[in-house]
Amino acid sequence: MARLASFMSLSLNGYYADEKSNMDFAHTPPDKEFGEFTTKNAQGGGRLLFGRTTYDLMKSYWPTPQAAKDMPEVAKQMNARTKLVASRSMERADWENTTVIKGDLAAEISKLKKDGPDITILGSGSIVQQLADAGLIDELSVVFVPISLKGGKSYLAGVEGRRAWKVAESRAFKNGNLFVRYHPN
Amino acid sequence: MARLASFMSLSLNGYYADEKSNMDFAHTPPDKEFGEFTTKNAQGGGRLLFGRTTYDLMKSYWPTPQAAKDMPEVAKQMNARTKLVASRSMERADWENTTVIKGDLAAEISKLKKDGPDITILGSGSIVQQLADAGLIDELSVVFVPISLKGGKSYLAGVEGRRAWKVAESRAFKNGNLFVRYHPN
Repeated sequence: MARLASFMSLSLNGYYADEKSNMDFAHTPPDKEFGEFTTKNAQGGGRLLFGRTTYDLMKSYWPTPQAAKDMPEVAKQMNARTKLVASRSMERADWENTTVIKGDLAAEISKLKKDGPDITILGSGSIVQQLADAGLIDELSVVFVPISLKGGKSYLAGVEGRRAWKVAESRAFKNGNLFVRYHPN
Repeated sequence: MARLASFMSLSLNGYYADEKSNMDFAHTPPDKEFGEFTTKNAQGGGRLLFGRTTYDLMKSYWPTPQAAKDMPEVAKQMNARTKLVASRSMERADWENTTVIKGDLAAEISKLKKDGPDITILGSGSIVQQLADAGLIDELSVVFVPISLKGGKSYLAGVEGRRAWKVAESRAFKNGNLFVRYHPN
């Protein structure tokens, strides 16, 4: 059984995007240790899953020469890894190694979890919400960025009920980012 | 100059109260180390500041025999400490050592910061929002509770702009609570 994880950067007040849907608050000052952490995550293998918005954002950056220059190892991995994009309107994805998931998302992901490597959802707040609602999320990997936002989109908003988690790992970086990995409790 | 701090428990998705304004999600399982941390905070001296809602909640618990039984040291301190409640409608506060702040909150707090011991706002999300908006907050002390909520009131929502903070301290407790102290960056 593959594990399904959500990896998300949040403002300290729980938003993954600001009122204009910008996520650039998460671009904290360069930090050697955090850079190594990001690179190690990219090398983690497994499948990546995005919603359409995050897919478009990622696709506009990782295959470019700029990405190859800024973060060569991460760019290489991002382009090489198996990617899934959830979209009802896309016919095909033109980023290499990417498959479009159409149809009922929870049903499709349930099927994909039965076999093959683990799946990590990068960003994609509404995809995370749908899959958490369906009880399919096995892990939350949250980076609390030391920024507060006036408003925006709250992580896991709309997920029915009050969910209890336990901390599997927590780590503080010099740039103020706090990484926490939660499992369902 | 007195320092003004906000002490707040948050769900992992940034809410200080759920959709029904309940804050009981913060009552995590007893943890010896977290209990000692709470007791030490209560003994910290300085003035406490509440909005009306938090005041009523605190007042309904800390002066009771139940509180004296559950958390004797914290109850003693909570009753003994100098307390301020921001309310336009209250005439006087009947919890011991409590003064009502009427009139313009930011102006009153600016005056109070000029002299006397530090001030800690407990809970009271809308008070924190007003004082953060006025640039009067010197510290955020946040407890990230390992619970996600469907919706509710987001911490610091409505505070103009994107505020940058730096982490002064972070600490993980066995019950899954993560304490983080932030200063303005």
